[in-house]
Amino acid sequence: MLALHSFFRSGTSHRVRIALNLKGISAEYHPVDLRTDAHLAAAFKAINPQALVPVLTVGSEHLIQSPAILEWLDETYPEPPLLPKDSFARARVRALAAMVGCDVHPLNNRRILMYLRSQFGADEAAVNTWCATWIGTAFDALEVMLAADKTRGDFCHGGQPSMADVYLVPQIESARRFGVDLAAWPHIMAIDVACQAIPAFANAAPSRQPDAA
Amino acid sequence: MLALHSFFRSGTSHRVRIALNLKGISAEYHPVDLRTDAHLAAAFKAINPQALVPVLTVGSEHLIQSPAILEWLDETYPEPPLLPKDSFARARVRALAAMVGCDVHPLNNRRILMYLRSQFGADEAAVNTWCATWIGTAFDALEVMLAADKTRGDFCHGGQPSMADVYLVPQIESARRFGVDLAAWPHIMAIDVACQAIPAFANAAPSRQPDAA
Repeated sequence: MLALHSFFRSGTSHRVRIALNLKGISAEYHPVDLRTDAHLAAAFKAINPQALVPVLTVGSEHLIQSPAILEWLDETYPEPPLLPKDSFARARVRALAAMVGCDVHPLNNRRILMYLRSQFGADEAAVNTWCATWIGTAFDALEVMLAADKTRGDFCHGGQPSMADVYLVPQIESARRFGVDLAAWPHIMAIDVACQAIPAFANAAPSRQPDAA
Repeated sequence: MLALHSFFRSGTSHRVRIALNLKGISAEYHPVDLRTDAHLAAAFKAINPQALVPVLTVGSEHLIQSPAILEWLDETYPEPPLLPKDSFARARVRALAAMVGCDVHPLNNRRILMYLRSQFGADEAAVNTWCATWIGTAFDALEVMLAADKTRGDFCHGGQPSMADVYLVPQIESARRFGVDLAAWPHIMAIDVACQAIPAFANAAPSRQPDAA
């Protein structure tokens, strides 16, 4: 039995929930409430010394870091695949994923925003501008790449959801929460619509989790 | 013929240089000088709309994002492998890599530090404290994980360099540049010594690149 240690609003937990749903894998939901510092408790740090969600528990193994968890899921449960077969296509999908996973999400993470507030005196407007800057910079580049891909169907790559959509959809959710106007990125918006029509994505949304506020 | 678009001091370019060296792959070195905004030129944005290094050019394909490039290299040139065979071990190595690749490097990136200076008035001391905070948080967790791994040899995982070392060594280099005292992390320091003894790592160092200052 798998168990997912997740916080409903965590974008990285959201990715893993989507991937589990796409592959039809059930996992027990273990909420970790970041608002009450549940992730800093000794019991949680024993399973993840980094004190971050998500953690996917598989028997006695505790898998951490969503990029590693997603690759593990795709290797262990190959159907439906999150990566295409062609090697350049795989590199492209992983690059689209990393644009969000490396160059957006880590910057808008809860601990970073707390630091901006406490150490640089950032108010909510400054925090939202910070978030919007990195989301916008990456989404501008993503939009160019998506528009240039003439073989693309309804998703980030081809006609099926891939690892890239697994990263993008939680980032869109987060962008909305930070008040970012998404109208500048019509390809990204259309991908969100296509994904939300799929129950695996819709059921992974923060608002549908047991720990949702 | 491969070509690597790289900036000598870029940690993500550094990763790809190590991986190319470990696999014995030669690539033409194309310097992109971030100090003169060479990455913002139209010619460079045509090959990478994200305007970031590294880019690995393979024929007519331009691979971007170091996590995607490294996975492509490992799939395309399997020897020596950057990932172990065992599925949980692969997840562990990828997690160690992502701890650096997601939770340290993106926060200490050049564009982020420029933003802290221009928008939050951060001086050099504040910038160094910012960098040291995220390096320290991740290195503390890495150190716990490395110390707990009783089957480990001289490297992050087992007795051979892996993807995790490819990420870690450039981050150690960067930590030194930001004046971080590494003495608190003896396992990480020992891994650095082991890696630096290998020409593939030593020759990938920023100071040995054609564009080094």
